Amino acid sequence: MIVELISVGTELLLGNIVNTNAAYLAEQCAGLGLSCFFQSVVGDNGDRLKHVLQTAMERSDVVILSGGLGPTEDDLTKEIAAEACEKKLVLHEPSRAVIEEYFKKKGVEPTGNNWKQAMLPEGCLVMGNPNGTAPGVIIETEQAKVLLFPGPPGELRSMFEAYARPYLAGLSLQVIRSRTVKVCGVGESSVETLIMDMIDGQSNPTLATYAKTGEVHIRVTAKAENEKAADALVQPVVEELQRRFGEAVYSTEDGETLEKTLLDLLRENEMTITCAESCTGGMLSARLINVAGASDVYRVGLVTYANEAKSRFLGVRETTLRTYGAVSTQTAEEMALGAAAAAEADVSVAVTGIAGPDGGTKEKPVGLVYIACYVRGKTTVRQYHFAGNRTKVREAAVAAALSLARSCILQNLL
Amino acid sequence: MIVELISVGTELLLGNIVNTNAAYLAEQCAGLGLSCFFQSVVGDNGDRLKHVLQTAMERSDVVILSGGLGPTEDDLTKEIAAEACEKKLVLHEPSRAVIEEYFKKKGVEPTGNNWKQAMLPEGCLVMGNPNGTAPGVIIETEQAKVLLFPGPPGELRSMFEAYARPYLAGLSLQVIRSRTVKVCGVGESSVETLIMDMIDGQSNPTLATYAKTGEVHIRVTAKAENEKAADALVQPVVEELQRRFGEAVYSTEDGETLEKTLLDLLRENEMTITCAESCTGGMLSARLINVAGASDVYRVGLVTYANEAKSRFLGVRETTLRTYGAVSTQTAEEMALGAAAAAEADVSVAVTGIAGPDGGTKEKPVGLVYIACYVRGKTTVRQYHFAGNRTKVREAAVAAALSLARSCILQNLL
Repeated sequence: MIVELISVGTELLLGNIVNTNAAYLAEQCAGLGLSCFFQSVVGDNGDRLKHVLQTAMERSDVVILSGGLGPTEDDLTKEIAAEACEKKLVLHEPSRAVIEEYFKKKGVEPTGNNWKQAMLPEGCLVMGNPNGTAPGVIIETEQAKVLLFPGPPGELRSMFEAYARPYLAGLSLQVIRSRTVKVCGVGESSVETLIMDMIDGQSNPTLATYAKTGEVHIRVTAKAENEKAADALVQPVVEELQRRFGEAVYSTEDGETLEKTLLDLLRENEMTITCAESCTGGMLSARLINVAGASDVYRVGLVTYANEAKSRFLGVRETTLRTYGAVSTQTAEEMALGAAAAAEADVSVAVTGIAGPDGGTKEKPVGLVYIACYVRGKTTVRQYHFAGNRTKVREAAVAAALSLARSCILQNLL
Repeated sequence: MIVELISVGTELLLGNIVNTNAAYLAEQCAGLGLSCFFQSVVGDNGDRLKHVLQTAMERSDVVILSGGLGPTEDDLTKEIAAEACEKKLVLHEPSRAVIEEYFKKKGVEPTGNNWKQAMLPEGCLVMGNPNGTAPGVIIETEQAKVLLFPGPPGELRSMFEAYARPYLAGLSLQVIRSRTVKVCGVGESSVETLIMDMIDGQSNPTLATYAKTGEVHIRVTAKAENEKAADALVQPVVEELQRRFGEAVYSTEDGETLEKTLLDLLRENEMTITCAESCTGGMLSARLINVAGASDVYRVGLVTYANEAKSRFLGVRETTLRTYGAVSTQTAEEMALGAAAAAEADVSVAVTGIAGPDGGTKEKPVGLVYIACYVRGKTTVRQYHFAGNRTKVREAAVAAALSLARSCILQNLL
């Protein structure tokens, strides 16, 4: 079963808003086992919308449109869809009553074009809208099922949940299940090389790699007639990936992040963590604290951007700064030790580097970063060279710091 | 001149990621005066991608593709675009050298498929990528100009700025000039209400509002036969907006950010700043330090997530925490005072709040945030209620903290 998404709205074509509806609908459809090959965005223009819709109906089984169901003259989606499906618009009495009630509550007189929203394609299925006056519509033709949703994400999502999900689930014969194997500390091309034979031989399940900053995600997806059969296809592939990547696999769960894995690891082992950041300037702490409930593991962290702050708050010796510089193995190590002592933490991670665009030299170029990780008495320092602009270097340093902390803690627990 | 956007990537079709590239490119193209009628998303599938690209080339003058330029076998965009434009792929020596250098720096051997990224369509214009190994490409055919960008937003944006913007501006016969009036601390609907008359009466220049976290950008765009004439149309509108929004306008320059404006303001007045963060957990410091050269103004900051840390590092009294709670006017104020003293800074900003999803109560719901700003002896505390998930609340708090700091410093300078 093939689904196609059409988002209608000039505000999308102008880039005024980001198309979160498409991402939501795509994710929901993928979860329902529908294959999606195309998404389109088109403005509030009758001819172009009709052309896009007709193309979609020819090549897909289900077409989901969002936007353009409002009361204004610009809003054409329902009229065009009715035309493309060769249906007349007829008054839908319950929708008329909803509009009447809505305006009565607001104490405002509805204008002529408000009633337009109660005119629906004949014989359609109606999706009630508890959050607005535009009902959703499902039109069934021999060629395709056409679903119309209003554009506001809150309205669309609750209507999808209540009406479209059960309707679409009933259409699908196959189930799709996928798992994501998340690898940290290994580059994308190395990951690909290591699983090239699996990618080449794939059909069901399929494998796809997604490069993230400092991580690679490998998605394993299988189709089968039921969930159990699909899971049975996915599971051995996930296990093979775990075997090949070993400790570098930090999770095989969808919602899991590297920072959450790290915090869970700390919590399970009753350890606390602190951060001492120079070039990352708080980004590492911010990523850890983005995990809800981090407070039992992360209590305090320091952003020591100036040299003087490194000495005063972390006890980095002035001779160290003078002899080796702020961006050095020695400074990173003393930062980590000082932070662990100041915060009375079991684990501390210190980051110091040259994020650019200025400040690089031949010996210490932009992108050079030292990360030190202290775990209960033992400190490990690593040198990194990251490519890219200031933001890229800082993001890569944060990802590397999380990876290094995880690996040092695992080492300590051996 | 008509432009069309094609985003390539299975992760978009599966809804794994939101298509922020399309929003960015659409906004940039609108600013350049290009009309956009269609956007498409298609997966890493040769036949479908070719079909979508050919359709786009038939109906549009410029086609911008993003995604699918990586080194893996999945990445087909360049190969398919070369086919559609009837160009051979040939080795581009400078791109090969960049890849060699990139891997040398990382101390890793490139694998066979890395070199694929140096094979470019013959006769194309190359857009260098300072943040990655995939060069961008402009292919010119009689039918259309085809621009290829890598998918990672950081890479795409800097390449668009450096290469595509001047190239696209050069294609247009009319000159388009736009200025952005950036407003902070005023909501989008208030902004719209205040300029409704200007929006209704617009033709040339046009006005468009873009809601950002804690900010609204008003883009003023004019077309004319030369730059001077276009600027002359834009200027009085910018001045009228400055008159209407007064101090809330923090910049009318394109590259300028709120944090950069704040740091410049501090520097001009020889002030230093520090941050004491609870729920934002380092995000505020990270945003300030993302501005290159922040070190003369920002020296040290503290992430005091636990109550105990607020007392120990900032001197927040235990009775204050007990009586009013960690999320209160009183705690925010003591955090700001304590941070200013500890960091010996002229200005300090303290943030404490309930970012959720847990921890909310009826009296103190999720989204409640207190921000205190100390400027040379005077402290201002504000209460905020932010909507959305944990990340949204934290981002909104950071934006509000920057706004508040700017406004308190301006107040102090009066």
